[in-house]
Amino acid sequence: MNNFLLKIQLLFVFTAAVLFTAAPAWTQSIDEPTVNMDMVNTFIEEGIERSQIMDMASYLTDVIGPRLTNSPQMYRANEWAAEMMESFGLQNVYQHEWGPFGRGWELTRFAMHAQSDQTYFPVIAYPKAWSPGYDEAVSGEVVFLEITEEKDFDYWRGRLEGKFVMIAEPAEPQLHWDAIARRHTDESLLRLANATQRIATGQQGGQSPNAAWIARQQAAYERAQFLMEERPLAILDESYRGWSGQVAISGATLPAPPGTPWGERPRPHQIDAPTPVPQVSLAREHYGRIFRMLQHGKTVELEMDLRVRFQEENLMGWNTIGSIPGTDPDLKDEFVVIGAHLDSWHTGTGATDNAAGSVVMLEAMRILQEAGVAPRRTIKIALWSGEEQGLIGSREFVETYLARPEGNPASPSSITRLDGYDKFSAYFNVDNGAGQIRGIYLQQNDAVRNLFRTWLLPFADWGTETVSWANTGSTDHVVFDRVGLPGFQFIQDPLEYFTLSHHSNMDTYERLVPQDLMRNAVIVATFAYHTAMLDERLPRKPGPELSAN
Amino acid sequence: MNNFLLKIQLLFVFTAAVLFTAAPAWTQSIDEPTVNMDMVNTFIEEGIERSQIMDMASYLTDVIGPRLTNSPQMYRANEWAAEMMESFGLQNVYQHEWGPFGRGWELTRFAMHAQSDQTYFPVIAYPKAWSPGYDEAVSGEVVFLEITEEKDFDYWRGRLEGKFVMIAEPAEPQLHWDAIARRHTDESLLRLANATQRIATGQQGGQSPNAAWIARQQAAYERAQFLMEERPLAILDESYRGWSGQVAISGATLPAPPGTPWGERPRPHQIDAPTPVPQVSLAREHYGRIFRMLQHGKTVELEMDLRVRFQEENLMGWNTIGSIPGTDPDLKDEFVVIGAHLDSWHTGTGATDNAAGSVVMLEAMRILQEAGVAPRRTIKIALWSGEEQGLIGSREFVETYLARPEGNPASPSSITRLDGYDKFSAYFNVDNGAGQIRGIYLQQNDAVRNLFRTWLLPFADWGTETVSWANTGSTDHVVFDRVGLPGFQFIQDPLEYFTLSHHSNMDTYERLVPQDLMRNAVIVATFAYHTAMLDERLPRKPGPELSAN
Repeated sequence: MNNFLLKIQLLFVFTAAVLFTAAPAWTQSIDEPTVNMDMVNTFIEEGIERSQIMDMASYLTDVIGPRLTNSPQMYRANEWAAEMMESFGLQNVYQHEWGPFGRGWELTRFAMHAQSDQTYFPVIAYPKAWSPGYDEAVSGEVVFLEITEEKDFDYWRGRLEGKFVMIAEPAEPQLHWDAIARRHTDESLLRLANATQRIATGQQGGQSPNAAWIARQQAAYERAQFLMEERPLAILDESYRGWSGQVAISGATLPAPPGTPWGERPRPHQIDAPTPVPQVSLAREHYGRIFRMLQHGKTVELEMDLRVRFQEENLMGWNTIGSIPGTDPDLKDEFVVIGAHLDSWHTGTGATDNAAGSVVMLEAMRILQEAGVAPRRTIKIALWSGEEQGLIGSREFVETYLARPEGNPASPSSITRLDGYDKFSAYFNVDNGAGQIRGIYLQQNDAVRNLFRTWLLPFADWGTETVSWANTGSTDHVVFDRVGLPGFQFIQDPLEYFTLSHHSNMDTYERLVPQDLMRNAVIVATFAYHTAMLDERLPRKPGPELSAN
Repeated sequence: MNNFLLKIQLLFVFTAAVLFTAAPAWTQSIDEPTVNMDMVNTFIEEGIERSQIMDMASYLTDVIGPRLTNSPQMYRANEWAAEMMESFGLQNVYQHEWGPFGRGWELTRFAMHAQSDQTYFPVIAYPKAWSPGYDEAVSGEVVFLEITEEKDFDYWRGRLEGKFVMIAEPAEPQLHWDAIARRHTDESLLRLANATQRIATGQQGGQSPNAAWIARQQAAYERAQFLMEERPLAILDESYRGWSGQVAISGATLPAPPGTPWGERPRPHQIDAPTPVPQVSLAREHYGRIFRMLQHGKTVELEMDLRVRFQEENLMGWNTIGSIPGTDPDLKDEFVVIGAHLDSWHTGTGATDNAAGSVVMLEAMRILQEAGVAPRRTIKIALWSGEEQGLIGSREFVETYLARPEGNPASPSSITRLDGYDKFSAYFNVDNGAGQIRGIYLQQNDAVRNLFRTWLLPFADWGTETVSWANTGSTDHVVFDRVGLPGFQFIQDPLEYFTLSHHSNMDTYERLVPQDLMRNAVIVATFAYHTAMLDERLPRKPGPELSAN
């Protein structure tokens, strides 16, 4: 610790614009941001030397397991999270019930066996979530359904019953020439530090669909409808990413005409949705092998034991919430929120997506509590559900307490402000895997740049300094940002998140790096604390203006 | 092709010591080695433009599947290889029967399911070869058998029946910081080019066992004996290498006192060996999860459906042999052999170990045949069995046709020369995966250095130039070398061989790179042809002298 303090003191000398104070009467404001180094050192000591984060991570991933929204495992995780919060001494711990979301689903048995006249092999595969199951093992031949013209439908009509259907050629095999795990480099961090409007727009936008893309979507829709009518035993595809037995997979889909808005597509967790054909993703090595056996003219028989349990008693989702109450008589009704989604996909144990973020948030609250903070504003933790199905739990939190958007929820035309809108300061999210925080995205809010730079100063030693003007998306801070409230996500080392663990059966405890998670909890505690101690709420970014009713 | 010829011509200018000839009356000798560029260009055209190698590789790996010695799949591969040889027009194609080796084994069904009070998951695992199976699925609790002192045996005695036994703590998780696939670099090739006695000795030798190692071996032996008596449902360990669902595994073992020579240990393929307890290796992610669940005080129940079939009708192994007969009246009884092992382990499809080498050899013979070579000496192909159990098939070939060693087969004290000993020129082997040949190991035989350098000259463009004085071991050329005959193995790009595919469930067709295999077949054809066309047999290296009876 002494070396660290020495470096901080040196840093102090070179950072004349920033005032470090350790005096009891410590305050800070937007115009004069400071770091409470006594407090940060307490956080570091608690978070690094007495960490409980890996034990929580192991319990959540190994014992509770994967946490599909509204599955029994998800509710158990909600209950466990509430128990943890209460054990730390948090107040007002409750399950924020939202919904209805729809039915839960869990896999209760899966095995797949491939047999030809010459050879047998067990197949590495997983069903997509909310696939229906069978009461017993089913067997049938594999066929490759190639539809290139209308009369192919006529050929296949009536021939798919009792069959397993492959619907695409396997991907071209690739060797692993690049390291699967990596950390940010100076180069990649500099690119973020220098991000401009152009880059940010590039990240958000997408090419508008061309005619070929629309034609492919239409063909896929017609094939999907055909398969809904023909009802083969299962639709097989290969892991959507990766090699080496990795199976990356999400939920079963239902046919929807091209152009159907994402929010209006039927989805199999909805209680009134049609029942999809079971959809099963195979490891690429096994999908490729079966495909090539067919090409050699061989018959391949699969046996599949797919059993599932639907949960339809409770259709409501739960977010788990807890608080460290504010102590400033004028500010204690205001609040800052730290959060992460607790739900996951079902094939691994949701370790990096997002047990990692969840235990970082729990540990941050434990650290704050152990440090005996008396925050001016209330600090809340929120562990969301339904993130993987479209940021639903966090959106429901916003719509319950902060603001109701009108029009397209992804870019509302106006909002109705709720009671919490003016009491809310900021939301901080972690959901980019288990890698160390290396900085923070400003989400285009330049007014917080100086604050965030200051609060990161104690972590220069850890390589955590970069502030990027850019947006980042795809997770729960977005729902705050959309209604004009400050919502932020940190920059993290990617490690193996996008190359191996994300949504795959390999998203397990083994992908977690203890030091990274411990540091992240300290950094999040620091941001939550300093936001809660500021004279003002965090500044909101100007426009696009939302007309408030 | 023209660019290539131009470069060869330029090379010619700078290689004055070497004579290229394309004249019909082409000859070469050890003192004046040359390359028949007309012939090499024919090999390149046939091997690159009309390659059949990937189709053979797919049939062998995907359709026939893994090829455990003496399994039905292995005999089928032997028969298929003979059919391919005959289809190319090879002569004297036959199965060289050797043995008895012992029983064959194949997996006919495997699934494993883990269940706790909270969660279910399917387990990625494979039994070790020659593990016995069960008539039906079996279920039981998992226990971690920790033996640190004698009384631990007393505690566990009688408590393991109906249990699954973990015998070791999981390895510390590691992220994949290094690329899994790599090619040789100038640096690594230079190290091989500069190899000296010291390096070669370092490769061969090993540290002599110390007291701690002996004590660990003794403890492992006692535990293994204890488990043979207690007979739990299965002994579980984790994949001996790798992460991400990779399961690297070989054969089941039987207890042997420390110090038992390798060749004298009982092995479960032997017809009179005791029956091992089923041994099952789990993906590290799943082994680790179960272990950590036990540490959290949870009960984990496994269900395992392990069914196997032993093949005891034919205890003899087969090597598949074929020839392109020699045409020089004085030399046609002499022969050069190219070979690779056709057998594999059982969890993948033995693609890099060693379908790759096998199809390179088949394709090399096809190329030679299509090129219409009329070799002075006979060129033989030999596809071995029993390599994975200790180079047995190739050793039996040597002992049938070339020389019988006396004493320790790994370093015989003397040999009995057989009829073929003086007719044999050289053996060339490929068994380091699917990577491109980048040169050749001299196996400490300096007398062939100039020859091999010359024969590699056409392949400088492919980065194939390096000649290393060093030995390489662990595969079939060794059994020739041991009796004083020239046996060589090529230097290959490692690709994913030692990091992913070797002996694992991920040793599949996806690990093969078409261009690498195509080039390898051309290079092997070139070496076989030039060895067969030399005025002399390949020089044998001096000493250690073997007294010949």
